[in-house]
Amino acid sequence: MVTASSSAPTIKFLQSATSPAWVEQAIAHLDVILLDHSHCERKAAGVALNLMFRYPSNAKLVRTLTAIAQEELEHFEQVNQILERRGIALGPLSAPPYGATLSAQVRRAEPQRLLDSLLVSGLIEARSHERLGLLAEHCPEPDLARFYRALMASEARHYGAYWVLATTYFDRSDVNARLEELAAVESEVLATLHPEPRVHS
Amino acid sequence: MVTASSSAPTIKFLQSATSPAWVEQAIAHLDVILLDHSHCERKAAGVALNLMFRYPSNAKLVRTLTAIAQEELEHFEQVNQILERRGIALGPLSAPPYGATLSAQVRRAEPQRLLDSLLVSGLIEARSHERLGLLAEHCPEPDLARFYRALMASEARHYGAYWVLATTYFDRSDVNARLEELAAVESEVLATLHPEPRVHS
Repeated sequence: MVTASSSAPTIKFLQSATSPAWVEQAIAHLDVILLDHSHCERKAAGVALNLMFRYPSNAKLVRTLTAIAQEELEHFEQVNQILERRGIALGPLSAPPYGATLSAQVRRAEPQRLLDSLLVSGLIEARSHERLGLLAEHCPEPDLARFYRALMASEARHYGAYWVLATTYFDRSDVNARLEELAAVESEVLATLHPEPRVHS
Repeated sequence: MVTASSSAPTIKFLQSATSPAWVEQAIAHLDVILLDHSHCERKAAGVALNLMFRYPSNAKLVRTLTAIAQEELEHFEQVNQILERRGIALGPLSAPPYGATLSAQVRRAEPQRLLDSLLVSGLIEARSHERLGLLAEHCPEPDLARFYRALMASEARHYGAYWVLATTYFDRSDVNARLEELAAVESEVLATLHPEPRVHS
């Protein structure tokens, strides 16, 4: 039984901490979590790239997202090497409702669309940071635990970077108000554990 | 007047060499070419990423395209730094017909779609290699010429990599036959110089 994840969120973006039930599910299915993690890194690179495509004139956004996309691709490659060493074939994996639920919160009209896109990406990075930290803490395989610990720093940088971009283009009070709404949805969707083990189940 | 580009293609993928008219147009509008080049690198990274999304189970394809996407993002950042030093603002730029014409050649049914996607990407990389070489040769600014020369090696690696992937998943004779058809379209679309200076005008 896992008891170490406290009930208070450790990351200020997030309104609730990941449940011990998720940690137990993940640790019991590390191979599936690794494969899903590979998809998460690739998707995160894709999201950063798509944002650059949508706002090609925002130099600071372009520069920040280029660096994020590069790091996500680096992690994608690292996770894929671990999969290869473990003999796990690359392949599709059904996604939990997490990403689609959050994307559905993004308002369609500008400039709200930009604000929401940045905050949703920031929330996903924050949650990834929290959960990789839990994996680092509870994973029984030392090599894998080290790997998760090594990734945590970038995930933290990434949600910080999305936050900085949001406050670059929007008033801090507007950012905070919207973040609170989106963070509530983010915690709500994770309140019921998805039956399939995933990074965001 | 530019006379140095010979009428024989120097790169075996390509059926015709770039005209001196393109070189003159490009050298006369280096700032626009640089901005378009930035878009090309970002688009190339996006194409590689989209291919990975479409074929997530093909480990060799995923690995090769991860490396390509990483390099394209690195070049994207390098070009953007040059734009910044020259005081050229990032921003959208209309695309020449080149990319859309080639994409329209990609057959919709698998496995032809994969073959065509790989060969179209390979052709675009081959043409970029040829044209960056011409810029390296004719650019009157030594720093910029050096930059173009430095990029050439990766573009050559990239079209080689797309070729290797094509021959990994398809018979070499099928690859050659389809390459010949696509290369004919590629040369045809460039036979008339696009009035706006672009990397692929």
